[in-house]
Amino acid sequence: MGSLGSNNNYEDGIISSDTVGKVITCKAAVAYGAGQPLVVEEIRVDPPHKMEVRIRVLFTSICHTDLSAWKGESEAQRAFPRILGHEASGVVESVGEGVSGLEIGDHVIPIFNGECEKCVYCKSKKTTNLCEKFRVNPMKSTMASDGKCRFSTKDGKSIFHFLNTSTFSEYTVLDSACVVKIDRMAPLDKMTLLSCGVSTGLGAVWNTADVEEGSTVVVFGLGAVGLAVVEGARTRGASRIIGVDINSEKQIKGKAIGLTDFINPKELDKPVHEGWGLTVLLGVHPSPRLLPLHPMEMFDGRRLVGSVFGDFKGKSQLPHFANQCTKGEVKLEEFITHEMPFSKINDAMQLLLDGKSLRCLLHL
Amino acid sequence: MGSLGSNNNYEDGIISSDTVGKVITCKAAVAYGAGQPLVVEEIRVDPPHKMEVRIRVLFTSICHTDLSAWKGESEAQRAFPRILGHEASGVVESVGEGVSGLEIGDHVIPIFNGECEKCVYCKSKKTTNLCEKFRVNPMKSTMASDGKCRFSTKDGKSIFHFLNTSTFSEYTVLDSACVVKIDRMAPLDKMTLLSCGVSTGLGAVWNTADVEEGSTVVVFGLGAVGLAVVEGARTRGASRIIGVDINSEKQIKGKAIGLTDFINPKELDKPVHEGWGLTVLLGVHPSPRLLPLHPMEMFDGRRLVGSVFGDFKGKSQLPHFANQCTKGEVKLEEFITHEMPFSKINDAMQLLLDGKSLRCLLHL
Repeated sequence: MGSLGSNNNYEDGIISSDTVGKVITCKAAVAYGAGQPLVVEEIRVDPPHKMEVRIRVLFTSICHTDLSAWKGESEAQRAFPRILGHEASGVVESVGEGVSGLEIGDHVIPIFNGECEKCVYCKSKKTTNLCEKFRVNPMKSTMASDGKCRFSTKDGKSIFHFLNTSTFSEYTVLDSACVVKIDRMAPLDKMTLLSCGVSTGLGAVWNTADVEEGSTVVVFGLGAVGLAVVEGARTRGASRIIGVDINSEKQIKGKAIGLTDFINPKELDKPVHEGWGLTVLLGVHPSPRLLPLHPMEMFDGRRLVGSVFGDFKGKSQLPHFANQCTKGEVKLEEFITHEMPFSKINDAMQLLLDGKSLRCLLHL
Repeated sequence: MGSLGSNNNYEDGIISSDTVGKVITCKAAVAYGAGQPLVVEEIRVDPPHKMEVRIRVLFTSICHTDLSAWKGESEAQRAFPRILGHEASGVVESVGEGVSGLEIGDHVIPIFNGECEKCVYCKSKKTTNLCEKFRVNPMKSTMASDGKCRFSTKDGKSIFHFLNTSTFSEYTVLDSACVVKIDRMAPLDKMTLLSCGVSTGLGAVWNTADVEEGSTVVVFGLGAVGLAVVEGARTRGASRIIGVDINSEKQIKGKAIGLTDFINPKELDKPVHEGWGLTVLLGVHPSPRLLPLHPMEMFDGRRLVGSVFGDFKGKSQLPHFANQCTKGEVKLEEFITHEMPFSKINDAMQLLLDGKSLRCLLHL
């Protein structure tokens, strides 16, 4: 493959100029019903419309939010057939009309919490990554521009989108607000982690809590996001990083990253410390239950904040974050525990369901 | 009266050196039972112990927290006989052993949320006014040093303290951590407002939310504390200050202070705006009910924080705040709606119960 001009370098056979503007037939893992094994089959992917981008997904991993939608935990989430997946990395195959800042061949990561760069939230100097048009919305299942799908089965039935991204496919179409260009030197395999879990955890420390050197950080739950919080606290020079999990085995990985203390509440019969400071809630909770919070609990110096995607403004801030990872300032080694070919995606789902993996990297 | 050295100026007959070290007999309004009219009668007030201060209360006002304790809304609050009251101003009559920074004749305001200036919270540079020893505690009813009372009836029965202050008495004894010296030029009558309501509201804007120029501030409930939030928002240059109350008459005072908009939710049948930003909870809620808050509500850019006494570190920050009021940078005119002699305290309580007063100033 030759070069099509600056930054339009085609990868070694990964993308081809032959597909631009055409429907692509490729492999995807399709969810046909709640809790049913994904079907890896050939699907059709339309070209990107105005302000959209089609990317060749090279790596994807699985997050609990994928499992939640796959199980159809809340009724509004149930939209089938659907292509799930939102943690990935890849290369731009083609761009729609009006897209700027993204070109064929660019290395990119999809973001489920987009940044239009124009709305009141995107322009706000406050710490917020709400975007009027592309904020995270687990109920959304079509493209923003026309409410339609870019995916279809070989017999022409529409396949729904998921979280602005749908990365369980060799090719996917996204709004350009949901595509972040990263440096070509960044290792694309590990960059999948920045699509969700690691950004969510580190960003909660850096952006939401803005943890200072010498702080004490307590992390409840030591899955991938929790461990990313530990890594974030380590990079900020927290003097105590206390992990809390009901599974004591989680402390092994936690201590490798930076935990100074570990508590298993099942092994305690009385409270261990007075709580004050900032509590950051991470993750999407479709639960019908209210927070078990009494107003008086707020009056002992407690603050409560929700954080989505670590309060990262994706397009503005992730390129720098990716560079920090490439330089080793942020360590990503501990997060990918398994690797598999894409065809084994159901095995990878099971590993996460069983709590045996942090992230399993699927090669497409 | 002559001068007893620098800053030991006795007021015109208000205090006398004859009482130092002795039990004082004076008038107080004693609560003998939940919801029973206060009895204004002669009581005895012991001299201050080590690190304590006895003050001559000159003005006191009434806050809903006094009403809540008087009604005995929660069982743990019921301690009778008791001297309620926590908004006041006065003059130091005598000081106990070890007290520094406070001398006989000093103009002072009591604070229910003390500042020991030594604990981890008092020394923290973060915005917090928790104090390990003297933080607000509506259940506390005796002095910290010995768990005893400094008040007694004429026949020798102990009378309980309230909120570190007990200002419904001509004389009261406080821990020195709960007494703030203010400039002699500050108008002592209006300074009662800084003891609680006005500090709580303005501090919520200045310290807790740190509202910036051009911000939009929404105030739910336009009582004295809510109106102090309006005044705080005005001083910070908020461009929109929206008052919300189920009583439309409240907008009159609100607009006099600085409201730009008023909403009565009872007159609306659909939501009027999307909420994001910081929510500050003010006031003590002995309610047994949990907050009706779903975790997902936190994920639209919402933050929730409780604020006690406006996050003011009382001893460190109130003297400057008092000066700002004296200079007119903060306007206190609208808050005192009634004035009465101390003997009419039950009438003043009724005015507040009926929602007819903001603050009624009682002259002792």
